[in-house]
Amino acid sequence: MKTYTNPTLEEIKSIIQRPVFSTDHLDAVIQSVFSEVESTGDQALKTFTSKYDEVELDQIIVSPEEIKNAEKNIPVELKRSIDQAYNNIYQFHKAQIPQIVEVVTQPGVICWQKPVPISSVGLYIPGGSAPLFSTILMLAIPARIAGCKKIVLCTPPGKDGKIPAAMLYVASLCKITHLCMVGGSQAIAAMALGTESVPQVDKIFGPGNQYVTAAKLHAFKLGKAIDMPAGPSEVLVFSDESGIPEYIAADLLSQAEHGADSQVIFVTTDENMVTQVEQEVRSQLELLPRKEIAIEALNHSSMVCVPDVNDAFNLINDYAPEHFIIASDRADDYLDLIENSGSVFIGNYTPESAGDYASGTNHTLPTAGAAKAFSGVNLGSFYKKITFQKITKEGLTDLGPSIVHMAREEQLEGHAQAVTRRIKQ
Amino acid sequence: MKTYTNPTLEEIKSIIQRPVFSTDHLDAVIQSVFSEVESTGDQALKTFTSKYDEVELDQIIVSPEEIKNAEKNIPVELKRSIDQAYNNIYQFHKAQIPQIVEVVTQPGVICWQKPVPISSVGLYIPGGSAPLFSTILMLAIPARIAGCKKIVLCTPPGKDGKIPAAMLYVASLCKITHLCMVGGSQAIAAMALGTESVPQVDKIFGPGNQYVTAAKLHAFKLGKAIDMPAGPSEVLVFSDESGIPEYIAADLLSQAEHGADSQVIFVTTDENMVTQVEQEVRSQLELLPRKEIAIEALNHSSMVCVPDVNDAFNLINDYAPEHFIIASDRADDYLDLIENSGSVFIGNYTPESAGDYASGTNHTLPTAGAAKAFSGVNLGSFYKKITFQKITKEGLTDLGPSIVHMAREEQLEGHAQAVTRRIKQ
Repeated sequence: MKTYTNPTLEEIKSIIQRPVFSTDHLDAVIQSVFSEVESTGDQALKTFTSKYDEVELDQIIVSPEEIKNAEKNIPVELKRSIDQAYNNIYQFHKAQIPQIVEVVTQPGVICWQKPVPISSVGLYIPGGSAPLFSTILMLAIPARIAGCKKIVLCTPPGKDGKIPAAMLYVASLCKITHLCMVGGSQAIAAMALGTESVPQVDKIFGPGNQYVTAAKLHAFKLGKAIDMPAGPSEVLVFSDESGIPEYIAADLLSQAEHGADSQVIFVTTDENMVTQVEQEVRSQLELLPRKEIAIEALNHSSMVCVPDVNDAFNLINDYAPEHFIIASDRADDYLDLIENSGSVFIGNYTPESAGDYASGTNHTLPTAGAAKAFSGVNLGSFYKKITFQKITKEGLTDLGPSIVHMAREEQLEGHAQAVTRRIKQ
Repeated sequence: MKTYTNPTLEEIKSIIQRPVFSTDHLDAVIQSVFSEVESTGDQALKTFTSKYDEVELDQIIVSPEEIKNAEKNIPVELKRSIDQAYNNIYQFHKAQIPQIVEVVTQPGVICWQKPVPISSVGLYIPGGSAPLFSTILMLAIPARIAGCKKIVLCTPPGKDGKIPAAMLYVASLCKITHLCMVGGSQAIAAMALGTESVPQVDKIFGPGNQYVTAAKLHAFKLGKAIDMPAGPSEVLVFSDESGIPEYIAADLLSQAEHGADSQVIFVTTDENMVTQVEQEVRSQLELLPRKEIAIEALNHSSMVCVPDVNDAFNLINDYAPEHFIIASDRADDYLDLIENSGSVFIGNYTPESAGDYASGTNHTLPTAGAAKAFSGVNLGSFYKKITFQKITKEGLTDLGPSIVHMAREEQLEGHAQAVTRRIKQ
């Protein structure tokens, strides 16, 4: 890890800089995937699956029986763990149920805002070496609480043409309505356009590689909502002198093991911490099965010592970390300084992995500085808010002249007449 | 207007179909605008303004004195109208202030979600024949209530190198922090990238032509948040036999006068209504200064008579109108049938123009069916929600084993160790 002590403004700029991942070069590929899926539907999906996942599928949809049977095929301890996580995530998201807001803005003029669930949502879960069942919990639990009617989940099948039992179990817990074996940009195209097996959805959620990201951006251009832009995962750990180097190093490494492109930053006001954490990182690294990946991530990571807490939080808010750990006994004192972050982990006993799996918060979070304007996935992500207004004749008689003046100033006489015709004597 | 009675499924599909506006052909132009603005900043903006708005600007920023003086330069009746609209919009948005949600998900595990205002936002207001001061009210009032620190407004100058007095007055009411004379895609580029005069922002709001839309999509790809995709404005009016043809026609025309690409649909369960509304449209059309524009819009608009209310609402929810007027004495009876709409206008005395200007609701709304998943601009659009979690050692001791099981199932040993190191005896 590169170490900075009292970095200059230029250095800070380079510390908080993310690698730029443009997907522009994929535009042509993505467009051809979308047009294939549009013209031949399921057939296109099966052909892509055969090519990229090396599996010949008869059926894209996983049968309800198979999903139901999964419960028997996973270890009881894993099942119990998933159930505990489910409960915490369910409780935290359930508490976020949005309310109707109603205001009588003036006599005879009532306005309200009503949250209405998005009717059909699509959840994408990447494949790869391990079954990412935790992301199903994070996306499907709030969809279920909101009351989305169709919850479509797409994930690529394994080489055996199947979905791992842990994922099937979570899909059954969360009552996924359509579990589809299809991955990559073709899965996003299928949910954006609809095929014989995969229903068209209104909003697409979930992480993925650059093809998936490019496909989600393409779907956005076609008018579909998406959860957020996605980039490599990140953690920033801040500590004063009361942090515990062993835990800090473990947190940095838990992020570094995600992928070679993971972003890991340690910021402290205590110079001794830098040396101690560095030593811990070195020794703990040896124990990790994914050591090689972690080393690559650490090679472009930074440890920064700044003169005081304000400098630290200026840097942190500029960086806007996806995950932000405050490794300190006085963590509460710093909370008001936080302006930009996806999710915050407070104190020496709150590792990022708690939020990754089971504390209750969502782990689908904005990366690459998007936390300045984007929220992580939350219950509200599964609703749209519709506004209503109801005006009485008396209300319109009072408000009407203002509407007429403003409409005429904007040269929209038709707008004025829609009022004058209603309030003429 | 094309008339359908008891349309077939195929016909309904064509009625609800929007014209597809792809901005792909503008990608190269937009990229060159962004790279010009990135490399030469204000100079690029001045050059574009000279080329497209035919004005040579010394200063891009409008001075605080000029903004302050605007109050004296607008008619007192217009000022009073704007003030009334301001108060209603302020009240309705103020009532939407989001709260912290806190849950103890299990003993020793506290999670909360905190809404935090987006620090800097950019509002785009198009130029053109009339000053669109109403859109400033709609975007700047919630930004101000949320507490955004920088509220940057970009709008092209008139041929006289100035901003109309009504817009300056609204800018002063809403305490815009940076009022910039720059329009088109270069304004979006300036807010996305920052220049000497125009501050970089985290989220960009506001309507515009296809260049502005393409530039907003480009900014989104660069990681900036945007309010929503934008398309031509729309109204759908539904009526049973208790609607008033004169008012319905006026509402249809108030949308049609917006632009030749405006979308106007009338749906009714009463066949007599079709003839009566058609007659009214024809006679009222003659009185509109923007008659030619309205005729073009009406040429691709539809009147649809369906057998019953359920058919009507199936069509309406599939269409997901930006503006939805229920022209009926029994409007309240239909409200529960609404699944998708931007803003709803209830009863015979609630014209769309009330919401366009002054009822209190926002007029920046999702078009082209985006109302299925997008909300109109609302107070929440100016916040992101940060999650927090705080776990005690005892809490982690109880939750830890579940995290460890799940992390190991996902083959992330580092995630497991971040827990085991903290709860080892």
